[in-house]
Amino acid sequence: MFLKNCWYVAAWDHELLDGRLLARTILEQAVLLYKSESGKVVALQDRCCHRGVPLHLGRREGDCVRCMYHGLKFDPSGKCIQIPGQEVVPAKLGVRSFPVVEKDHLIWIWMGDPARANPDDIIDFPYLRDPQWKGVPDYMHYDANWLLIVDNLADFAHLAFVHTKTLGGSEEYAYVTKPVSVERLPDGFRVERWHMDAPPPPFHNKVLPAHLKGKPVDRRNIGRMHIPGIFFLESMFSPAGSGSEQGNREGTREYRNCQFMTPQTRRTTHFFWVYLNNWEAGDANISRSLHASLIEGFMEDKHLIEAQQKVLDADPSFQMLAVAADAALAHFRRTFDQLVTAEQAGEAAAPAVIEVRKPHQAGMPA
Amino acid sequence: MFLKNCWYVAAWDHELLDGRLLARTILEQAVLLYKSESGKVVALQDRCCHRGVPLHLGRREGDCVRCMYHGLKFDPSGKCIQIPGQEVVPAKLGVRSFPVVEKDHLIWIWMGDPARANPDDIIDFPYLRDPQWKGVPDYMHYDANWLLIVDNLADFAHLAFVHTKTLGGSEEYAYVTKPVSVERLPDGFRVERWHMDAPPPPFHNKVLPAHLKGKPVDRRNIGRMHIPGIFFLESMFSPAGSGSEQGNREGTREYRNCQFMTPQTRRTTHFFWVYLNNWEAGDANISRSLHASLIEGFMEDKHLIEAQQKVLDADPSFQMLAVAADAALAHFRRTFDQLVTAEQAGEAAAPAVIEVRKPHQAGMPA
Amino acid sequence: MFLKNCWYVAAWDHELLDGRLLARTILEQAVLLYKSESGKVVALQDRCCHRGVPLHLGRREGDCVRCMYHGLKFDPSGKCIQIPGQEVVPAKLGVRSFPVVEKDHLIWIWMGDPARANPDDIIDFPYLRDPQWKGVPDYMHYDANWLLIVDNLADFAHLAFVHTKTLGGSEEYAYVTKPVSVERLPDGFRVERWHMDAPPPPFHNKVLPAHLKGKPVDRRNIGRMHIPGIFFLESMFSPAGSGSEQGNREGTREYRNCQFMTPQTRRTTHFFWVYLNNWEAGDANISRSLHASLIEGFMEDKHLIEAQQKVLDADPSFQMLAVAADAALAHFRRTFDQLVTAEQAGEAAAPAVIEVRKPHQAGMPA
Repeated sequence: MFLKNCWYVAAWDHELLDGRLLARTILEQAVLLYKSESGKVVALQDRCCHRGVPLHLGRREGDCVRCMYHGLKFDPSGKCIQIPGQEVVPAKLGVRSFPVVEKDHLIWIWMGDPARANPDDIIDFPYLRDPQWKGVPDYMHYDANWLLIVDNLADFAHLAFVHTKTLGGSEEYAYVTKPVSVERLPDGFRVERWHMDAPPPPFHNKVLPAHLKGKPVDRRNIGRMHIPGIFFLESMFSPAGSGSEQGNREGTREYRNCQFMTPQTRRTTHFFWVYLNNWEAGDANISRSLHASLIEGFMEDKHLIEAQQKVLDADPSFQMLAVAADAALAHFRRTFDQLVTAEQAGEAAAPAVIEVRKPHQAGMPA
Repeated sequence: MFLKNCWYVAAWDHELLDGRLLARTILEQAVLLYKSESGKVVALQDRCCHRGVPLHLGRREGDCVRCMYHGLKFDPSGKCIQIPGQEVVPAKLGVRSFPVVEKDHLIWIWMGDPARANPDDIIDFPYLRDPQWKGVPDYMHYDANWLLIVDNLADFAHLAFVHTKTLGGSEEYAYVTKPVSVERLPDGFRVERWHMDAPPPPFHNKVLPAHLKGKPVDRRNIGRMHIPGIFFLESMFSPAGSGSEQGNREGTREYRNCQFMTPQTRRTTHFFWVYLNNWEAGDANISRSLHASLIEGFMEDKHLIEAQQKVLDADPSFQMLAVAADAALAHFRRTFDQLVTAEQAGEAAAPAVIEVRKPHQAGMPA
Repeated sequence: MFLKNCWYVAAWDHELLDGRLLARTILEQAVLLYKSESGKVVALQDRCCHRGVPLHLGRREGDCVRCMYHGLKFDPSGKCIQIPGQEVVPAKLGVRSFPVVEKDHLIWIWMGDPARANPDDIIDFPYLRDPQWKGVPDYMHYDANWLLIVDNLADFAHLAFVHTKTLGGSEEYAYVTKPVSVERLPDGFRVERWHMDAPPPPFHNKVLPAHLKGKPVDRRNIGRMHIPGIFFLESMFSPAGSGSEQGNREGTREYRNCQFMTPQTRRTTHFFWVYLNNWEAGDANISRSLHASLIEGFMEDKHLIEAQQKVLDADPSFQMLAVAADAALAHFRRTFDQLVTAEQAGEAAAPAVIEVRKPHQAGMPA
């Protein structure tokens, strides 16, 4: 069901400001996240080992956290280091801790075997730390399995029907464009699609200067999905006929869309995202408008995807029928299932290393 | 549990005005209902065969409906006739369709074997199409199994205690009246009860002209319940002592109450109804007052019946104890269970024809 | 799971004023409680034996209750004595009745074998009827198993962390005080704890006259828990150093806290309580302030305990780890489990008398 031996996004860094004790369920486990006084992020099982009270109802004390029921105190490794009114603390008393890494404004967590947690395996997306690229990091909660969101992102054709008046621009997109390529990769897929000589879609048109509004564009979308559910989308809008498909970048405006799907439960998902641009040049209203447009678009997806989840819950025997556009999502689900099967076999018998590859850089603009 | 090979009311015709895509769960199946451009009602499984998105979130196009996720288009038979961006549509792609008939302002649906669906089997109630009979068609949702509503309607004695101040008029009704007859019929029952020389019940008194208000009446109720859950009630109020039981109709005011119970799920019911009179003579406030009074009365039933459902859910082992007044409901439940058993045996082995009879006309006033 | 052969608090007497039909689920059984016209409290199964409608939706008639669906009437023993429109009432028709006793403003109910119900076994707490002791009786509903509330009351150490600013007063309480004694009793436990020379806790300080506010006190708490979940707390505040531990009572202010936990279901609890003082001398604002302070404190418990219940529901395999302070609660749970096991064995085989002892008077101040 869940892939455990891989890194998931647990939070944005701003969610842990000022020592906040953040409760977040990840892969159906209750986790407490906080930044210790010495600045390191801590992730502990959110349940006191004594009587089960959630630790996020407690209090941070320096690098530690104290349960505010009977006062047990835990250090960042989860070890219980004090029981008020009792001299000796049994060595076995404590709660589980999880490997956790703060990187480029994201908090990454490893829910599987801690011995296999290697921070070098965390996918690197340099745009997240590049001050040239601006955006408003945000969070959305889905009442749906995260794979339904992965499915959604696997085919740009849905832009035509779901997002006609927001992110898509026209239904034509579904008929006259085709994927240039669908690359099946060991850790996901890469899809590329061009749409030539079309009006700029509403979200883009809104932030264009007056003299460019409505002028036709050549649009290129490159989506890269990584297991377990990490999506990077590069979008480029060039003046129609300016030769962008031959590499001419003049007048091109680019976006980077980063989306991180982390299962909360089988039926609910944490969705972290930021939409970046590198051309707002000090005008933060560009970011704000794009952020608002993306929320509008995501709500359109959310409406359909949560309806899908209800349909699946109502009849678990329902077999989806594949169409040609499902190539990418079918590959992703097959690959993912193989990894889960291997991992579960490994846990039961001999350990098997699950390789989650570094991001595929091909196709990234220079 | 459910009887499938019979006609159920799925909607009032006014619910499908202007091409509306109506989602309605019937016998635990999600159904999409709409009126096609050419004027025929269509009933399809409300679930795209591709990724399961509900079709009622889609768009009507002429006689067809398009799923607004990836754009698959379905004709009124449920066949998929277009997949944007794909040349060939596999023949097997499609969704289930249901036989559906529009008749006398009601939309009737057949959830069982389509080969057995015969529109001639739909119960005929001419008052529904007679312009002399006026009323306000309406809908109510019950959090209760539909058989509990059938039970409720099977004994007029409940008028005395549940509806004392609305539809009943006095508790005396339970003590001094008796059913003239309880007829056990192959497809339900017929119950007749007279109450002589009593004040007019509040709902009726409200719509009487001033000189008749409060004047005693002889009241005759004839209820006719059909499997699976269709109820027609004829009510006549004659001046007390005017000889109505000998057939004298002078000064008599009559009503026709039509109620259609359609299971949504095991625990919830669609309740369609209209309360008709033939004497308002252009004064629509008569209909409106009766409609308001009936809602008031139905809410009294709903309150008790939904409480009953909770009691049954809390202890499924509870065995109800019968009293003498349960003759009609006991017959109905026994007959219904036999039909379900026969139908289910037929589905598993040899087909068995379930006969649902045309309405019993006996007792209808000329 | 539940201990049945013992007395539970079902209601405060003021909840039955004016013939009110009170619906209350106790040990997962729906019970109707009412005071008959002749003044005796009646407890009946809250479900008409005919069609299952709750009797609390009915009407009290003298000492009886009438179901307001079809009008069946039941006497205080639960026997059906009238069916409107039917001459003979079958002897077997009726609903279960429960032994019930009104005593000292509380309604006590016996959910087990009626033959074993002995009103002399009801715990006697004379302060409840002593007009010198004043308080505001109240009720709170918990979304948690009642044993989690028993646990909570079994260790005064939680005052330090949960109630620092309300009932506790300081975190020091958890470190510098110790139970003087934890007595393991056949029907529960008795715990005593002293805290010397400390500021008066906020709830007490609020009701002190100006010249005493903030003056240090010696605080004595004696808690007595009885199976199935009945708690009496004696609290005494003496001027610090006045020799209260040698029995000097001069300047001492005392409280009596009575708490009655009655399982509604496995996961929910009725919590009846009153906080008494004997020194308000006509100033009812003292009671009112204490009542408000206690609610404030109880809400702190409720917040944690209901969170605990959710944690336990999320992972029923969770094993709590004991600390030294758990002596009393561990004894209570062990004793309780033994009684339930014995009772259930007795029900299946030979009857076994479950002894629930009268209250332990040791330690009560003269």
